Amino acid sequence: MSKFWSPFVKDLVPYVPGEQPKLTNLVKLNTNENPYGPSPRAIAAMQTELNDNLRLYPDPNGERLKRAVADYYGVQPAQVFVGNGSDEVLAHAFYGLFQHGKPLLFPDVSYSFYPVYCGLYGIAYEAVALDEQFQINVADYARPNGGIIFPNPNAPTGRLLALDAIERLLQANTDSVVLVDEAYIDFGGTTAISLVDRYPNLLVTQTLSKSRSLAGLRVGLAVGHPDLIEALERIKNSFNSYPLDRVAIAGAAAAFEDRDYFERSRQQVIVSRESVSSALQELGFEVLPSAANFIFARHSQRDAAELAAGLREHGVIVRHFKQPRIDQFLRITIGAPEQNQALLDALRGIVSSPES
Amino acid sequence: MSKFWSPFVKDLVPYVPGEQPKLTNLVKLNTNENPYGPSPRAIAAMQTELNDNLRLYPDPNGERLKRAVADYYGVQPAQVFVGNGSDEVLAHAFYGLFQHGKPLLFPDVSYSFYPVYCGLYGIAYEAVALDEQFQINVADYARPNGGIIFPNPNAPTGRLLALDAIERLLQANTDSVVLVDEAYIDFGGTTAISLVDRYPNLLVTQTLSKSRSLAGLRVGLAVGHPDLIEALERIKNSFNSYPLDRVAIAGAAAAFEDRDYFERSRQQVIVSRESVSSALQELGFEVLPSAANFIFARHSQRDAAELAAGLREHGVIVRHFKQPRIDQFLRITIGAPEQNQALLDALRGIVSSPES
Repeated sequence: MSKFWSPFVKDLVPYVPGEQPKLTNLVKLNTNENPYGPSPRAIAAMQTELNDNLRLYPDPNGERLKRAVADYYGVQPAQVFVGNGSDEVLAHAFYGLFQHGKPLLFPDVSYSFYPVYCGLYGIAYEAVALDEQFQINVADYARPNGGIIFPNPNAPTGRLLALDAIERLLQANTDSVVLVDEAYIDFGGTTAISLVDRYPNLLVTQTLSKSRSLAGLRVGLAVGHPDLIEALERIKNSFNSYPLDRVAIAGAAAAFEDRDYFERSRQQVIVSRESVSSALQELGFEVLPSAANFIFARHSQRDAAELAAGLREHGVIVRHFKQPRIDQFLRITIGAPEQNQALLDALRGIVSSPES
Repeated sequence: MSKFWSPFVKDLVPYVPGEQPKLTNLVKLNTNENPYGPSPRAIAAMQTELNDNLRLYPDPNGERLKRAVADYYGVQPAQVFVGNGSDEVLAHAFYGLFQHGKPLLFPDVSYSFYPVYCGLYGIAYEAVALDEQFQINVADYARPNGGIIFPNPNAPTGRLLALDAIERLLQANTDSVVLVDEAYIDFGGTTAISLVDRYPNLLVTQTLSKSRSLAGLRVGLAVGHPDLIEALERIKNSFNSYPLDRVAIAGAAAAFEDRDYFERSRQQVIVSRESVSSALQELGFEVLPSAANFIFARHSQRDAAELAAGLREHGVIVRHFKQPRIDQFLRITIGAPEQNQALLDALRGIVSSPES
């Protein structure tokens, strides 16, 4: 605390991202990165940007990327917003669309950045409990609110909310924005972007950090009615004129254009997820049905914190949240086959040994 | 305006960046980019990042870059903050350090993003008039304030405030933060970073977009007391965990490490500035003394808006601000010798022709 800080700063409780270890020999299954690299066309597009033109500002509007996203989803560029990772896009959405007199609603088990944004922008919120199977029940959101946000599939549970349930939510909630955070949608869900033309209160966010294998490049996006996009643009243009650099715009656009690579790599992740899920169940884990590139699982006899510590001793890192309701779960990213094998081998040794 | 917007959004007056024209044959002297490309070592460092590791998140703290900046300036990494362009760094500083009960002070002729940030974060401000020679008089800032910010050299005037004047300002203003925005410092000034160990209320920001020739990469930084840096980190970690991508961290660090290239290219700009200034004076312009990579000049007989339009017809774009006190000035970026020649040739034709 310092007398120079704006008063709200002392009350901030920042988000804590998953560990980015310096050791390179770890099997890193803790931050839901893609085990496969980005599209070779994306790499090539980025290479063409590494020249003297880096002395020049990028296109402040990232039109090339907006067009690629619009083409992919069959929407207009004016329905697309792009930013420096979906975290930045979400931050602008919280500030620009959720600061009303009523509380924002989101699931009690959800992306832990949501309450952090609320703290940053002074937004009141209410956490709405998932049901006993860790599912969203849309009827529970029928209460006065200044907005609704949830990841779909949800994180860290991996559970998917069907499109017809989202549509019911939109119809029952026409006076505030429903933001569907689709960071993991490509691993098993259907995007709600098909609904944006019919629901002016729907905003869908996505990231290139997961299914597009570009976590290291920091690109995210939002799709929705042009009025919602305009709010984001007004904030962006009052915050930072050029959030996306030349390399990021080119790489992200090319990643959207290379549909074949995208389809192949996401299918590989989906296939691995199903086989890892089966193997974990054989080891005594309850595994929530996942539509994401991670699984959320708890063991019938072993404590999750001890399992995570044991895995780390074997050089495997996964994520454990010390939070109510989920402190007996591990969130395990789906890796490449050899990483998944290392995880399962380590777990086999741990669960078959006497309890500590 | 939409019912879904947070109420403040409708009142935002976003910043308008200089035009980024799609035409490639224009002589672009409107956004103060460097005429010389980035360091070849920076390009090489970025190239090594274009691989499968882009699937992984970057270091959220950008330690490699913080170390490079700290080494360059002889400070500790804990005194350094890095972000997605100095505009993002400034935004966090406005929110985290200037939201007090008293008005922020900045010059009446200054970077036009400052009042925009104030609008974004509900910060009251007072514009303090530059003197008749467009200089900052530090005595004018001896009034109650919640912070003071100014560019040094100032933009768009190019005028430098000497370090001893900054020190007097710091001594007379120990209860709020003084932010010295050094976007252009490397073209003729002395950085105030040497003062941060003695003045806990001093924050210095810089960008890699000008003297480091990396406008297209979006990297900025702040140096100050660890308490001030902590405020920025708390906001950053409540906004976006990973503002700098892998390519940007590597390229920016290498740019700071390549001191020879930096010295050579900035000296070339300085030499060109002096010759362009002389040539403009011969053409009848009053040229303010500039310590930046641009000059601010007005013609004794010709209207600035007409000059700008005339230059554009000749394929040369410069920046003209329709603002009180400076609407007869043009802000002209120093280009490569052939660009400067094209500017002077075009101006010679325009000012020697009959007035329209």
